[in-house]
Amino acid sequence: MRLRHKPGAADQIRQYPQYVILNPQDSKGKWQSVFEKEQPIHIEVGTGRGRFIVEMAKANPHINYIGIEKYTSVISDALDKLIEAEVPNLKLLNVDAQKLTDFFEDGEIDRVYLNFSDPWPKVRHEKRRLTHKTFLSMYQQIMNKDGEIHFKTDNQELFEFSIMSIANYGMTIHFLSLDLHNSEFEGNIMTEYEEKFSSKGNRIYRIEAAYRK
Amino acid sequence: MRLRHKPGAADQIRQYPQYVILNPQDSKGKWQSVFEKEQPIHIEVGTGRGRFIVEMAKANPHINYIGIEKYTSVISDALDKLIEAEVPNLKLLNVDAQKLTDFFEDGEIDRVYLNFSDPWPKVRHEKRRLTHKTFLSMYQQIMNKDGEIHFKTDNQELFEFSIMSIANYGMTIHFLSLDLHNSEFEGNIMTEYEEKFSSKGNRIYRIEAAYRK
Repeated sequence: MRLRHKPGAADQIRQYPQYVILNPQDSKGKWQSVFEKEQPIHIEVGTGRGRFIVEMAKANPHINYIGIEKYTSVISDALDKLIEAEVPNLKLLNVDAQKLTDFFEDGEIDRVYLNFSDPWPKVRHEKRRLTHKTFLSMYQQIMNKDGEIHFKTDNQELFEFSIMSIANYGMTIHFLSLDLHNSEFEGNIMTEYEEKFSSKGNRIYRIEAAYRK
Repeated sequence: MRLRHKPGAADQIRQYPQYVILNPQDSKGKWQSVFEKEQPIHIEVGTGRGRFIVEMAKANPHINYIGIEKYTSVISDALDKLIEAEVPNLKLLNVDAQKLTDFFEDGEIDRVYLNFSDPWPKVRHEKRRLTHKTFLSMYQQIMNKDGEIHFKTDNQELFEFSIMSIANYGMTIHFLSLDLHNSEFEGNIMTEYEEKFSSKGNRIYRIEAAYRK
């Protein structure tokens, strides 16, 4: 994602502590109390400018959502959308995904969404890919036993890597599409990036995977 | 594959018992003695008109190959190529893949190739797909512990199904390409079908998988 400096982004985030949770480590193990209702928690790791997670929260009031994004200037755009949507079932965290286990207790999460994650194409950066086994292990720790990973991307190499990583970790795959926009999948909510690059003819790849019990 | 009647195909096959093994159940557990040299055995299930397996046998004299094809009129074309190639490390079987365990002893095989297998697109025919779990189980039985499956196809739905089937069976994936002809994979030998359909712009998908030890 192209980053730009957004003046006042850090200030804006501090003005909405009801939306961007400022000390998320304090909520570890107590996330249900942060929301109005106790219901399953789905997180998006790398939430970007927020269209996906805001639309999901509007469409699914029976789910609590948490969008995680490390870049302040980017999450500020997601915050703008959340302020307008005014939904009670979405919170944002301006933190690094490397530290998920600092913020979530074991088994606290029900689903992880990964959308158009940074492909980190160089082999020496493989460990930074959000479907690397170290991340799969981290997601497993913070998710309950029925937890699922839902991942989509237009990056062929990242998707190839991710399928192998998921299979080799021993996970099961219950949905896979090599051309999502020409499939029978219903209810897809497009990210900003997805709309732009699919309109240029890029295929969208998508997978749903679960941990073996 | 489009089938046509080929007059004399059955007669021709009987004239070359050194190439098309007539009572393969008699060789169960003794395949090494059918070949000139004792060396790893790779089989192709659904060998079609034979270009792949004949070229593989020519390129890899240190491997013994067995091409399996149920249609007599089709395997007859493979036989024509084998007669011309005159290689000692390739045999053909005119049998049904459903009965592999009748012809091969447990652990006797080192690798299974599946190339452009029939996609059987209807869900009620799912069990006939050569990457269905019942086939993966059969291959596991006749292969040794280091045995691998190498599969390629241009059929998107069959490839999606196959990835899920392979992962859900608990296999590991050590190679995966979603666009083989534009990848860095070297030494690809094209089947007749592959040449025709890739020239029309179809993507070729390929996977290598192994059983978990």
